[in-house]
Amino acid sequence: MKRGNFTLPGESGYEDLTLKLAEEWGADVIRDSDGTSLSGKLLDAGYEIYSTICCIRGHNAWAVKHPEDLQQTFLMSDPVIAQDASVSIHLTDGYLTEQFKVNDSPESVKLWQVFDRTAQVQVPDPQWQYEAEAGNVVITGTVPYHQYTVNFLAYRIWEEISMYNHITNGWTQEHLMPIDPRSRAAQEYLLSWMEEWCNEHPDTDTVRFTSLFYNFVWIWGSDRKRQNRFTDWGSYDFTVSPLALAGFEKQYGYALTSEDFIHQGKRHATHMPPDKKLLDYMEFTTRFVTQFGRKLVDIVHAHGKKALLFYDDSWVGTEPYSRYFPDMNFDGIIKCVFSGYEVRLCANVPAKIHEIRLHPYLFPTGLGGAPTFSAGGHPERDAMLYWAHIRRALLRQCVDRIGLGGYLHLVQGYPEFVDCIGKIADEFRRIQQLQKEGEVYTLPIRVAVLHAWGKLRSWTLSGHFHETYMQDLIHINEALSGLPLQVSFVNFDDVKRGALSGVDVVINAGRAGSAWSGGDAWNDPEVVSALTKWTQEGGVFLGVNEPSAAGGAMSYFRMAHVLGVDEDTGARVCEGRYAFAAKTVPGLIPADAFIRARKGRILTDGAHTDVLMAQTLTTAGYPDPEPALTMHPFGEGMGVYLSSFEFTYPNARMLLNIILKAAGHGLDRSFLPDNPWCECAYYPASEVLAVVNNSQEEQRTQIRVSRSGNESSISLTLAPLEMRFLDLSERLA
Amino acid sequence: MKRGNFTLPGESGYEDLTLKLAEEWGADVIRDSDGTSLSGKLLDAGYEIYSTICCIRGHNAWAVKHPEDLQQTFLMSDPVIAQDASVSIHLTDGYLTEQFKVNDSPESVKLWQVFDRTAQVQVPDPQWQYEAEAGNVVITGTVPYHQYTVNFLAYRIWEEISMYNHITNGWTQEHLMPIDPRSRAAQEYLLSWMEEWCNEHPDTDTVRFTSLFYNFVWIWGSDRKRQNRFTDWGSYDFTVSPLALAGFEKQYGYALTSEDFIHQGKRHATHMPPDKKLLDYMEFTTRFVTQFGRKLVDIVHAHGKKALLFYDDSWVGTEPYSRYFPDMNFDGIIKCVFSGYEVRLCANVPAKIHEIRLHPYLFPTGLGGAPTFSAGGHPERDAMLYWAHIRRALLRQCVDRIGLGGYLHLVQGYPEFVDCIGKIADEFRRIQQLQKEGEVYTLPIRVAVLHAWGKLRSWTLSGHFHETYMQDLIHINEALSGLPLQVSFVNFDDVKRGALSGVDVVINAGRAGSAWSGGDAWNDPEVVSALTKWTQEGGVFLGVNEPSAAGGAMSYFRMAHVLGVDEDTGARVCEGRYAFAAKTVPGLIPADAFIRARKGRILTDGAHTDVLMAQTLTTAGYPDPEPALTMHPFGEGMGVYLSSFEFTYPNARMLLNIILKAAGHGLDRSFLPDNPWCECAYYPASEVLAVVNNSQEEQRTQIRVSRSGNESSISLTLAPLEMRFLDLSERLA
Repeated sequence: MKRGNFTLPGESGYEDLTLKLAEEWGADVIRDSDGTSLSGKLLDAGYEIYSTICCIRGHNAWAVKHPEDLQQTFLMSDPVIAQDASVSIHLTDGYLTEQFKVNDSPESVKLWQVFDRTAQVQVPDPQWQYEAEAGNVVITGTVPYHQYTVNFLAYRIWEEISMYNHITNGWTQEHLMPIDPRSRAAQEYLLSWMEEWCNEHPDTDTVRFTSLFYNFVWIWGSDRKRQNRFTDWGSYDFTVSPLALAGFEKQYGYALTSEDFIHQGKRHATHMPPDKKLLDYMEFTTRFVTQFGRKLVDIVHAHGKKALLFYDDSWVGTEPYSRYFPDMNFDGIIKCVFSGYEVRLCANVPAKIHEIRLHPYLFPTGLGGAPTFSAGGHPERDAMLYWAHIRRALLRQCVDRIGLGGYLHLVQGYPEFVDCIGKIADEFRRIQQLQKEGEVYTLPIRVAVLHAWGKLRSWTLSGHFHETYMQDLIHINEALSGLPLQVSFVNFDDVKRGALSGVDVVINAGRAGSAWSGGDAWNDPEVVSALTKWTQEGGVFLGVNEPSAAGGAMSYFRMAHVLGVDEDTGARVCEGRYAFAAKTVPGLIPADAFIRARKGRILTDGAHTDVLMAQTLTTAGYPDPEPALTMHPFGEGMGVYLSSFEFTYPNARMLLNIILKAAGHGLDRSFLPDNPWCECAYYPASEVLAVVNNSQEEQRTQIRVSRSGNESSISLTLAPLEMRFLDLSERLA
Repeated sequence: MKRGNFTLPGESGYEDLTLKLAEEWGADVIRDSDGTSLSGKLLDAGYEIYSTICCIRGHNAWAVKHPEDLQQTFLMSDPVIAQDASVSIHLTDGYLTEQFKVNDSPESVKLWQVFDRTAQVQVPDPQWQYEAEAGNVVITGTVPYHQYTVNFLAYRIWEEISMYNHITNGWTQEHLMPIDPRSRAAQEYLLSWMEEWCNEHPDTDTVRFTSLFYNFVWIWGSDRKRQNRFTDWGSYDFTVSPLALAGFEKQYGYALTSEDFIHQGKRHATHMPPDKKLLDYMEFTTRFVTQFGRKLVDIVHAHGKKALLFYDDSWVGTEPYSRYFPDMNFDGIIKCVFSGYEVRLCANVPAKIHEIRLHPYLFPTGLGGAPTFSAGGHPERDAMLYWAHIRRALLRQCVDRIGLGGYLHLVQGYPEFVDCIGKIADEFRRIQQLQKEGEVYTLPIRVAVLHAWGKLRSWTLSGHFHETYMQDLIHINEALSGLPLQVSFVNFDDVKRGALSGVDVVINAGRAGSAWSGGDAWNDPEVVSALTKWTQEGGVFLGVNEPSAAGGAMSYFRMAHVLGVDEDTGARVCEGRYAFAAKTVPGLIPADAFIRARKGRILTDGAHTDVLMAQTLTTAGYPDPEPALTMHPFGEGMGVYLSSFEFTYPNARMLLNIILKAAGHGLDRSFLPDNPWCECAYYPASEVLAVVNNSQEEQRTQIRVSRSGNESSISLTLAPLEMRFLDLSERLA
């Protein structure tokens, strides 16, 4: 098991190092990286070769001749306050003009919209005109002291990833321009380019697409104090163009407006619930990306090469849980991962090959500019801490391959890192082997995470953990990724269509109004009554933060009658609160686990709601006792409320305990270490128990193991971050 | 100045003590208390006599014969989940049945409404019926798993203040029933009772009405864990009856429904913005209370007695800033006070006599059951701490009288308390004398507090400070009550009608959606543009917490363009935040002052918004730098944002400094002590400077004083809570 399933980034000029590390880490694939190429010595060394391409950039010669085929987006001008009966707005003020250029073609300008944002009305078209030379829209008939904005269409003249590297890492190459494959001309160009590329790369076994066409939305500003104006990893707003909108209207029978994208300047963050128009537009775009992407994949296949999707950056329209994904015919998916939930996202994709790219990236600096392979850096520590998150998810569901990315020569001063990756590769291969022998043992509890996106956004919210940490659900997903539970993701339509049949626990976690809590979906009485019935008949409805919240009705949490908890948003300040005393359930809350209370949570059924954790917060120095964890029996089922949830290893174990208790299982079960810093996975076919210590300290734990009526208890001490494999065959014979 | 303007509660059986303390404290009035009467020795001692009456209770003999004339209220049954096509709801479940009795008369039942709260629709009347014997409403045609409620009308069979004392203080008297003066029969009874009462009390000089007819809303529950279901000091909901509603429809041309009172069970808290129906109903009730109240006052006057309104408990319809108040013809108002804002509320009422009743009340226990005149109590310390709040307000605007309430014999073991009250009475009389000689010096800054209630609810929100501490505005009002500023209260219609002309600073402070922030009023573009224009022309718009917040538009704070700050409620999570560094303005933030940051506050104009205080909060362990205090120049004026404000003496001074700076005044002014625990008031006519130490420690301070170009600086050291009067005539000669 010392070789295979490992992708190494080769580096020309460091051929010996590349081959030495390939040997040491057991690599079977050598890949190039964005902007590097492999020398003949590496190409001929007997390894499978991955070559990275990004189709839509690196075609500046063509782009310069076809400026109308650059990618676009809607922007909203910064608001301007009218002083009298007319006002002039310079459209691109505040935006980075190296990124955006106004598209003032007639078919673009007719899509623009001008708004009085104070009165919240659109300004009729005859009341404004564009002064192309100055770049201004002049609006007449304005109301003094009202604020006006213009929605306009802009070309994106600098591909965002190259722009980011340019600005952040001091790159000096020419600005790459992103071309939009919507037009026939662009498509013809790209298809012939792909054909040519394959011809020119006979040594390439696998084409690694980074990803396809459209980047996540990343809007930069001119003010250095706010260089990043808007970043949404889940948004489709960078796909729009007059051509796309015309195609949409033809297919869907109605037109989208600029305001459907701009939404009062707030755009439509992925963290907010989608409406029908957005879902239609995403489907429209996904179908286009699938159809044209398939043509590129077909060319690659025709050349006898494999095609892998590196699911990152230009991923828009390639979502792996979309029904269209299999139609692209990729041979597999590669996902760069920091976290366990990203492993589960990757592992479950309907494709043959699942590869994860580990962190740290081989680059001098890492997240937030922290040193990695530079003075003060500890890449081996970083690698192990990421690995601990990833490993527990792999123990539940393994992938096919792991790999690294970046500049290999950087590892030269870091022998501990080299050792560490060797150890990680070995651990990976052992986990993989066990799962080939048979499935991991899982508790008989089926959990469905309920949010507005459902299956389409299984496991991920959008982007990495450190980009979405403010959303309660990412913490829940990260915890679930390594727990011995069966997990699925459903949306509100699924609930109405009966998707909860066979589900034991529904989790709804997030801030009011968000996609994760659900927002307006909770105004649908069918959703509420379906969940009420399901809970009453034995389900566990587990809500975090502002579950089922939607203003305007009797309760703010629409499932308050099930949860036994609601939130006062201000209108209930005159209501008396139930007095409560927190009860202790032995073994429920592990050492080091916590739930932060939030203000304004009120018991709606003080007689039957058990408060299992509470905190006294203060308001202006006055005490506010707040329930943090409650359970409320409801019919045969249970409403469970957590005011917040943050991922830590002990908190993940707490979540499991809460689910066990609420679902009517005992806490004292086999295959659950008594130390919350430790976890284990049991592989019945191999009779092997994998035990991990997720902490950076030595841990001692006891685990009850059982098989066919035989029981035993194992005690062991694990070194910091250690994984140990125990053969149980004799012990349970 | 050792005598006068002091009201002493006399106690029969303790005649010598009463007269001794009357002498020692310089009382000129002896009053009885609720439930006590004065002996002949006290009545004949040469003091003016106040007698307390509460018109609507203490008439049980009559009430038993006229059960249809008891006061009423709408209640909503606790929600019940339908299991199939019909459901039965026992109306009074969860309510204290000693307080409420269903009014099932035909004219009542026809006002009832049944709702499907899940679907948010009313159940048609033919689908339900009342089973009087069981006390149930049975609803048919229900949807399984939907929640149903019944709005019904109930008699209040136990007057709430007697109920409270009964339950809390172990009273054992018969339950007093509150009679409703709406009917002709009740009115005739009460008028003749008043006449008779006056005849029977020849020694009474002044009738002290506690207050008139209708109590604030206080709804008790059957569950001891939530005895108090709902308490709203500002609500008119205890005035309702079929008779009142019929009268309303006749006068206003439209009918109110039970749901107009119930509002999905949330009722209509005073902390929420009123709608037109509520304002109409309040006016309707106020007119009735005024008209019938006037008849009682006229009887009192006809007997040669004065009539004072003790503004408490049964105050509904007697609001002193209503345009109807003078029509009641009271000779004055008495307000019990804990705080400075209550002094200002009292002092400004259009009436001849303004009296404040100090705390502690002479009772064994005080707020929240803390010992006062019982073991462990320190009534003299409590008195001085309340007095410090009250005194600084009196220094700005004095009242005519002070007094105490309760059981005088309780002071016997507390000689320090007796001394302390003597000292307080002397300080009061000295302040009063100075204001008789001339007005206090005030800064040339006119502040308008802007909220949904405007002038009607000047100074107070509803109830005492400790009942409203969770509202930012009460802290602001308390600070303003002792600051050298001119203060008024305006509502949103006032703004549109030009009320800001002549105003220098507008304060809008509160939680989104509350009456204090304004809620829907901010959806009116006229309000926003009027304030925008006013600020641009030089005004200071100072917002606290969620000023001008209303969902649905481009910005959440509708004045974000003026404030330079907005709030992200979740939809803007993908937006980049402006980087900022907090600037220090010398002298602006006093020692010990603070502003607590709140999450999600974002700079909207990072280039021009000065952050003057900031805090780094955390979300799931990640840092969130949050602005706590900002200033944003806007035209000739300024937007100022405070994320919160809590009353402390140093914070009050901070607020003054912020106002001075934002309004373009220097911080280094005369008559402002350099120690934030000290304040002063200058009386130019007397050339006297009163300096107070608001802290419980000795404080040293320096004060620049000036007059007609002469300047001087005074240094002094004040004992804990000391007030010192300095004659400046020689120093500034």
